[in-house]
Amino acid sequence: MTVTAAEAIERATGCLLGGSLESAEAVAAMDARLSVARRAVEDQTYELLARQSPVAGDLRALVVAIKVGADIDRMGSLANHVAKVAKRRHPAVAVPDQMFDPFRKMGAVADRMARSAGAVLLSQDAADAERVALDDDAMDGLRRSLFRALLDEEWPYGVESAIDVALLGRYYERFADHAVSIADAVVYLVTGSLPEERAEPLG
Amino acid sequence: MTVTAAEAIERATGCLLGGSLESAEAVAAMDARLSVARRAVEDQTYELLARQSPVAGDLRALVVAIKVGADIDRMGSLANHVAKVAKRRHPAVAVPDQMFDPFRKMGAVADRMARSAGAVLLSQDAADAERVALDDDAMDGLRRSLFRALLDEEWPYGVESAIDVALLGRYYERFADHAVSIADAVVYLVTGSLPEERAEPLG
Repeated sequence: MTVTAAEAIERATGCLLGGSLESAEAVAAMDARLSVARRAVEDQTYELLARQSPVAGDLRALVVAIKVGADIDRMGSLANHVAKVAKRRHPAVAVPDQMFDPFRKMGAVADRMARSAGAVLLSQDAADAERVALDDDAMDGLRRSLFRALLDEEWPYGVESAIDVALLGRYYERFADHAVSIADAVVYLVTGSLPEERAEPLG
Repeated sequence: MTVTAAEAIERATGCLLGGSLESAEAVAAMDARLSVARRAVEDQTYELLARQSPVAGDLRALVVAIKVGADIDRMGSLANHVAKVAKRRHPAVAVPDQMFDPFRKMGAVADRMARSAGAVLLSQDAADAERVALDDDAMDGLRRSLFRALLDEEWPYGVESAIDVALLGRYYERFADHAVSIADAVVYLVTGSLPEERAEPLG
């Protein structure tokens, strides 16, 4: 699921930066696949719960599994939001040339964060989770520089484009937040603690 | 928790429409209280799980409890996002006079939706849930009219204000989505089914 989410945001970003409409359709399909996968996670979790008598630790793991499934599903929806903006503006390009570079970087960071969140799910390693958190700082920095450009008195691309860029920035930021949330939930499950600044493991 | 979320979005809206900075602080405090309450829900749920041997149906209810706690916590964060925009622009008012009316309506609908979601939690009644869904349609309509005003060629308030209004619209929309998500999760838990157009009970 995390690989699909990574591919979805990568393709959505390509689509946004002048890619084809087929890319937008591909992202919509990945979003739909993630919803199906998430429901499968839920169903299998409940089946496990029904057939076994899990103790508290296992129960936490199962609740975290459902929570992580929901996070990744949401990441797919956010990638699809990006693709839909691209589609709505097609054949025009939603993002002004001058903003290509920040969006390319945000796409790359988001892609990497989804994959790193997947790595944390497999390794359950706090060091992997720390990589996700570092990339999240990078994402926040990119989003801030995006808003600085938007709020520059000289922003020459008009209101419609400013709104697109602002909402797109928000979608990437939320995508990244969910990756952090996955990594934190896994680390919390395994170690029972988190760095203080991120104290909401099921956020 | 739903009452606190309702009060938070109501006060945040007041704050946005020219209210005092104290209101913004009050919203921040409610947001913090909701995070504490959500953690209490999680802790008590896990305690219940540890002391008893719940069967599948009860387990679903406990997973839904954790999910609903997370939704309401997030509603508090979104109300606080609104308050923060108001605070950032203070003593100026973030929303142009002409947009007061749609925001007042969005605030009222959001407030009502949080309370209705709370009613669903108590009554577990599909009719109450339907009221939440109807208000969500109203919210979508309000958000659409907001964007029509923003994309009007004549939008006279500049880029910064357009970005504020667009992001604020998104916060109210997401606040409403979480209320729907709570109502749907409860109805799904109780009846095992949902109207087809809303088929993601744990979304």
